[in-house]
Amino acid sequence: MKLTTDHIQQSNTKLKKEHQRKFDFLAESLDQRGLDVSELIQKIKDLQIAIPSWALGAGGTRFGRFSGAGEPATLIHKIQDVGILHALNKSNNAVSLHIPWDTPQDYEAIKQIADEVQIGFDAVNSNTFQDQAGQLQSYKYGSLANSEQAVRDLAVQHNKEVIEIGKKLGSKALTVWLADGASFPGQHSLRKALQNTYSSLQEIYKDLPEDWKMLVEYKPYEPNFYSTVIQDWGTSFLLANKLGPKAFTLVDLGHHLPNTNIEQIVATLMTEKKLGGFHFNDSKYGDDDLTVGSIKPYQLFLIFHELIRGFDETENPPLSWMIDASHNLKDPLEDLLQSVEAIKISYAQALLVDQKALESAQESHDVTAAQDILQDAYRTDVRPLLAEAIRQSGGAISAIDAYRNLNVREQLIKERGKSSKASGL
Amino acid sequence: MKLTTDHIQQSNTKLKKEHQRKFDFLAESLDQRGLDVSELIQKIKDLQIAIPSWALGAGGTRFGRFSGAGEPATLIHKIQDVGILHALNKSNNAVSLHIPWDTPQDYEAIKQIADEVQIGFDAVNSNTFQDQAGQLQSYKYGSLANSEQAVRDLAVQHNKEVIEIGKKLGSKALTVWLADGASFPGQHSLRKALQNTYSSLQEIYKDLPEDWKMLVEYKPYEPNFYSTVIQDWGTSFLLANKLGPKAFTLVDLGHHLPNTNIEQIVATLMTEKKLGGFHFNDSKYGDDDLTVGSIKPYQLFLIFHELIRGFDETENPPLSWMIDASHNLKDPLEDLLQSVEAIKISYAQALLVDQKALESAQESHDVTAAQDILQDAYRTDVRPLLAEAIRQSGGAISAIDAYRNLNVREQLIKERGKSSKASGL
Amino acid sequence: MKLTTDHIQQSNTKLKKEHQRKFDFLAESLDQRGLDVSELIQKIKDLQIAIPSWALGAGGTRFGRFSGAGEPATLIHKIQDVGILHALNKSNNAVSLHIPWDTPQDYEAIKQIADEVQIGFDAVNSNTFQDQAGQLQSYKYGSLANSEQAVRDLAVQHNKEVIEIGKKLGSKALTVWLADGASFPGQHSLRKALQNTYSSLQEIYKDLPEDWKMLVEYKPYEPNFYSTVIQDWGTSFLLANKLGPKAFTLVDLGHHLPNTNIEQIVATLMTEKKLGGFHFNDSKYGDDDLTVGSIKPYQLFLIFHELIRGFDETENPPLSWMIDASHNLKDPLEDLLQSVEAIKISYAQALLVDQKALESAQESHDVTAAQDILQDAYRTDVRPLLAEAIRQSGGAISAIDAYRNLNVREQLIKERGKSSKASGL
Amino acid sequence: MKLTTDHIQQSNTKLKKEHQRKFDFLAESLDQRGLDVSELIQKIKDLQIAIPSWALGAGGTRFGRFSGAGEPATLIHKIQDVGILHALNKSNNAVSLHIPWDTPQDYEAIKQIADEVQIGFDAVNSNTFQDQAGQLQSYKYGSLANSEQAVRDLAVQHNKEVIEIGKKLGSKALTVWLADGASFPGQHSLRKALQNTYSSLQEIYKDLPEDWKMLVEYKPYEPNFYSTVIQDWGTSFLLANKLGPKAFTLVDLGHHLPNTNIEQIVATLMTEKKLGGFHFNDSKYGDDDLTVGSIKPYQLFLIFHELIRGFDETENPPLSWMIDASHNLKDPLEDLLQSVEAIKISYAQALLVDQKALESAQESHDVTAAQDILQDAYRTDVRPLLAEAIRQSGGAISAIDAYRNLNVREQLIKERGKSSKASGL
Repeated sequence: MKLTTDHIQQSNTKLKKEHQRKFDFLAESLDQRGLDVSELIQKIKDLQIAIPSWALGAGGTRFGRFSGAGEPATLIHKIQDVGILHALNKSNNAVSLHIPWDTPQDYEAIKQIADEVQIGFDAVNSNTFQDQAGQLQSYKYGSLANSEQAVRDLAVQHNKEVIEIGKKLGSKALTVWLADGASFPGQHSLRKALQNTYSSLQEIYKDLPEDWKMLVEYKPYEPNFYSTVIQDWGTSFLLANKLGPKAFTLVDLGHHLPNTNIEQIVATLMTEKKLGGFHFNDSKYGDDDLTVGSIKPYQLFLIFHELIRGFDETENPPLSWMIDASHNLKDPLEDLLQSVEAIKISYAQALLVDQKALESAQESHDVTAAQDILQDAYRTDVRPLLAEAIRQSGGAISAIDAYRNLNVREQLIKERGKSSKASGL
Repeated sequence: MKLTTDHIQQSNTKLKKEHQRKFDFLAESLDQRGLDVSELIQKIKDLQIAIPSWALGAGGTRFGRFSGAGEPATLIHKIQDVGILHALNKSNNAVSLHIPWDTPQDYEAIKQIADEVQIGFDAVNSNTFQDQAGQLQSYKYGSLANSEQAVRDLAVQHNKEVIEIGKKLGSKALTVWLADGASFPGQHSLRKALQNTYSSLQEIYKDLPEDWKMLVEYKPYEPNFYSTVIQDWGTSFLLANKLGPKAFTLVDLGHHLPNTNIEQIVATLMTEKKLGGFHFNDSKYGDDDLTVGSIKPYQLFLIFHELIRGFDETENPPLSWMIDASHNLKDPLEDLLQSVEAIKISYAQALLVDQKALESAQESHDVTAAQDILQDAYRTDVRPLLAEAIRQSGGAISAIDAYRNLNVREQLIKERGKSSKASGL
Repeated sequence: MKLTTDHIQQSNTKLKKEHQRKFDFLAESLDQRGLDVSELIQKIKDLQIAIPSWALGAGGTRFGRFSGAGEPATLIHKIQDVGILHALNKSNNAVSLHIPWDTPQDYEAIKQIADEVQIGFDAVNSNTFQDQAGQLQSYKYGSLANSEQAVRDLAVQHNKEVIEIGKKLGSKALTVWLADGASFPGQHSLRKALQNTYSSLQEIYKDLPEDWKMLVEYKPYEPNFYSTVIQDWGTSFLLANKLGPKAFTLVDLGHHLPNTNIEQIVATLMTEKKLGGFHFNDSKYGDDDLTVGSIKPYQLFLIFHELIRGFDETENPPLSWMIDASHNLKDPLEDLLQSVEAIKISYAQALLVDQKALESAQESHDVTAAQDILQDAYRTDVRPLLAEAIRQSGGAISAIDAYRNLNVREQLIKERGKSSKASGL
Repeated sequence: MKLTTDHIQQSNTKLKKEHQRKFDFLAESLDQRGLDVSELIQKIKDLQIAIPSWALGAGGTRFGRFSGAGEPATLIHKIQDVGILHALNKSNNAVSLHIPWDTPQDYEAIKQIADEVQIGFDAVNSNTFQDQAGQLQSYKYGSLANSEQAVRDLAVQHNKEVIEIGKKLGSKALTVWLADGASFPGQHSLRKALQNTYSSLQEIYKDLPEDWKMLVEYKPYEPNFYSTVIQDWGTSFLLANKLGPKAFTLVDLGHHLPNTNIEQIVATLMTEKKLGGFHFNDSKYGDDDLTVGSIKPYQLFLIFHELIRGFDETENPPLSWMIDASHNLKDPLEDLLQSVEAIKISYAQALLVDQKALESAQESHDVTAAQDILQDAYRTDVRPLLAEAIRQSGGAISAIDAYRNLNVREQLIKERGKSSKASGL
């Protein structure tokens, strides 16, 4: 299934008038604040967020998985799904693949299909947290950190293959998320596990093309419950620094201990030019992988506020923007539409912050004013700005309404069958 | 110092036109959603939040205190300060006193002063977490929970005196916050401490007038760091149930372990008709006592959403609304204005939730729609609605602007002296 | 495979002398403290902990599962496994079944097999967190709490069937763990979900035999990540109180928010005669389901200290003792042997606490002494006491050594095959 | 007051026989494990932990302070107190001063008094979290991180003075704990605050003598409740790396978010040769500053396990060992005796770990055995080993018993007066 421009335009027709009223009001308000509305719209248009292939089917927990209907059973299906999202919101022009779940059979065919729906290939993800059928060595006790050379070699080799796959598709980054760790004190040497990880990453780094990034993810726990080798940004940063200029830290919003000030981590990493990108999601307890913005929208705004300041004030290179969520309860495509909207709302709000006034309040220790300046931006209803950016790009003023009115899921079920399951999950 | 209506009106003059533009837009939008704007405004006007006497001076931490200037050194000063807040925002028509810090000398004089600024007396607070000069028994090892009868008696007696003071002022509730607990395993018997607390509360309850409430606060830790006798809502609820129909649980937003779902506690307590009231504040780590809405505004909205459903669907009696914050870094009056505004924003947003549509989405397990319905309300910029409610009541369209333009703090410093310190802190 | 007394005795031979030396030293030390060593040994012998059927195979996470070898593929296998544990440590005389994973085909045959290895049937567990093949209604959006009557009915009916199965096997308790909750604000009505749960539990309670208990578990999150209907002990206690005298709260050590004082919950529930039993495990982050005592052994000791005081000072009925762990990395039988040993160590240490001296220290606020009294017991190496209790009962002085020396797992693999998988996981 | 060898010996007399029985048993057991008992004793003797001057009086919370009796009102008193501790346990041969609270008047006199009780001067601590009387610039909005150059200069200057004081006393390290941060989003620029801190530390570093260390502490929150400039080990490590070879990270056990794996941080820092030292204490919730070992003794053991491996396997320089606790409820000297004992117990237990067997278990992924090896050491009652080390050094077999039997506190009260208050608190 493919959404056409006609489909989309038709869905916009009845929303246009009310959209115009709201946009006019907002544009006037922003204009009064001295903001350039068309520049804002252009920035919002430019923000493109990659969709991970594994978020297109319903995710599960260790207690089970409730599959959705018409899930994408093949890589082609997955690309089609991202194409649908992009047709609707004009903000998801890339997919992030997970190997071996998404290893292409015919690269040229895949690239052509992706081209047709204007989708590129973002960071490729390796998987050394599961054993594949027939695998000679097991990752049960770790992969890149394993005390056994043979296991480490296997995991290194897998990552190199992922790079090769990415090269054929036009990716420019390798994301390394390691489950490696220990569930019990004493299970392994904490120091050796770190040193093994570093050595293994060095091996992989050697094969990284010059114009690629290596994105090193961190996470405090799960699936290991005593220690994770790359437990925090400090460990990732330490490794990225040692590895070299192509290695960066990736921030997954759900990979933190309770109450962590994530925006400060973002600010610090940008100061050091080592922020590589994001896995966006939201969470209340742990790595809950909920829809972006569904739990802590103000924190997301504060993160974007730091990003915008960092773009202006640091030499940190451009970022990789990805979603990493897992949707047990919603239609995955609807969930992704909500996630992307939440990211763009936070970005737009952060663009409204009066940076000059804020800096002045900060210099004079006017804490009351500083809070008011941030919250004035946050409390502004920026949705008409987003809608206008999408409308101008040919997308749907209200993406979820369009998705529903156009019966997208029903058609996917018709095409794929009700019990089609997302590969890899 | 007293703010007059003239002062306030004058501050509104130059804001009126822009306010009108924004209010008209919002009113039209709400009207289109089928909402009765004047009813909304009335509800917002009716929301009155009590100011605690101890929030009028800069609070400190165990590492020190940085006092503000022109702090209220006497009870009269404190009432004046609340009068200033109420003149500005028309939403703080009561003060909540802390005994013995605020014990009046001349009740009639105090009541007259309060009348003049249209301030009443909300819940009275007892203090058994500090020893007063010359006190014969020490609360070092607990008060109502102490293993020594003599100490418990002293603490019970103090609470009875607080009730007497409250009766003279027109209060209708006693708030009991107990620091009692243990910092080390074994320090006291967990079971006996709970039983002693219950017995002591029973003694106090006997003296509680028929039309009063006893508000039993809970808190997981601080100032005791191993165990607090009333550690959670379950313990407070257990005690309130045993004590009788006048006893209720008080929820202080900062008194929870990391990641607690507070709105669910609110919903449960209302179902059981045992929610007594709130101490509003915000926090990132523990009982940080920050400005309401400064850290987790969406959580505050979700709490108000539960409150509004509870008002409609349960027989829980009306609540006591209080702020409990501690302001080290901002002018306390500005901080309180921001807190009150944040409460009212959350309340107004929650009033906008389309309850019918939400119920329907819930019944049909349409999780996407349910989230959208809540967030549609939350993302609406309701500030013009608040401003209109205040304007109609004779307050300031922008309270902090008015406070600053009218040089309130400067005048207080002139009257009280720069180094005037808030009594009790 | 079945371990015989001969096997066990043989494994003890070479350990006896050193055991005797250590036991003699300890016995003399305890004797000097005025403790009755044979009474202590008897108490340790009497402590029997049920093994959950699902802990006999390697558990997994949402990121995958690394199966062990020779896992018990049938209910008979599972009973055999518990029989092996009990032969070794004489402390696991019951199994706790999970329905429908363990539904017996032939009750008499199963009971006879259990009899042969001296294993009884502890609490039966219902499962309404997964859909079974062909199930007409889905638990995707909840079971007992579901807004749809038909789903609630199905879940109630399932629980009633579990009771029937338990009756046939001689169980005396139903454990209800509910995954019901919401992953997103607004997904369901928090109040209605609680009320539906209560109504459903009432229906089940009606079918509960007079001499049975209903054990109501609580948990803050997972597999739902915004709200769980029975989120804490307070909610479970509230329900248990309303349901009636046969309903109790079950404490799973891993089901708490960070830093919760669990021993205080235990003390409070016993005071109210509403503690029903335990699911023992250990954790660092969330419901990690690690080996008991592997992370926070002192907390476990403090819990047992409260239990022992509660046994003496309250009228709480006898408890159900169960392990609930999930072993991804160790041989499950070894892991369970370690868990059981850790429980018994904590129990033995708690038995050594000088209660009189502690009470006296508490009365006189001698915090230093109170800590020393607890830690003196905790720091005592009680392992010889445990070994003696097992030895006297005919078990293995060192259970894991015996398990390994007798090549138990190798034999199970031979009997069952290397790739035998535990049913239900 | 000064404890003489006679006092101590006398207190040992009646404990000697029982001590010998226990020590003999333990020595035989350790001998059987192949351990060199006299080498163990020597290592325990060599462990010396500095006492911070501020832990000698009762600490308080923001809710008040319950002073003890006979607190040390002067620097001389404080040195006497540490002398008493050292006479009793032979493990505290140094004091760590806090400037300006402990600025000496007469350096030679102070050094002579310290010499007499065999006490040296460990790291000196600067204080830029409080304003001193007459201070021209305020630290209210930060010190080394402040946006105002004049405030930063003052704080830099203070640190340089602290170094000068330390030089005169023979200290070899400066500990920098910064309260700097923000309680509200927007209050200051997160990036500028970090950069200012780095610049300020560079200034101080320039004045650091060649044989000194700069110990950079980190802490996630308190007294600022939104952001702390040096929020975690990663930030401290980043700064220490940039500053140079004399800068190290200091780990305070209470300065972590919930559930942090501290032992892994220790292992990582040692791998990078950047671990500078410790502030020991214990905590359940936040920076609770409780007696070491009173809440999580197993975690402390695991930390010492990493330290011992790090000493063997890394080139990390020798560490600064300090206690940092705050004792509201116990006699501070008793509390410190308990803390020091807990540290030494953990150290001794960690020395017992069979490193060869552990390494072998780790290499073969024998998780069960690895856990058993660690817990075998942890469960050993090592107290007789500590007692023997102290006895041989001329200290008290049971320090707290001796302290009480010799009526130390009573004599201090007699000498200093009941209401003597610790200076600085």
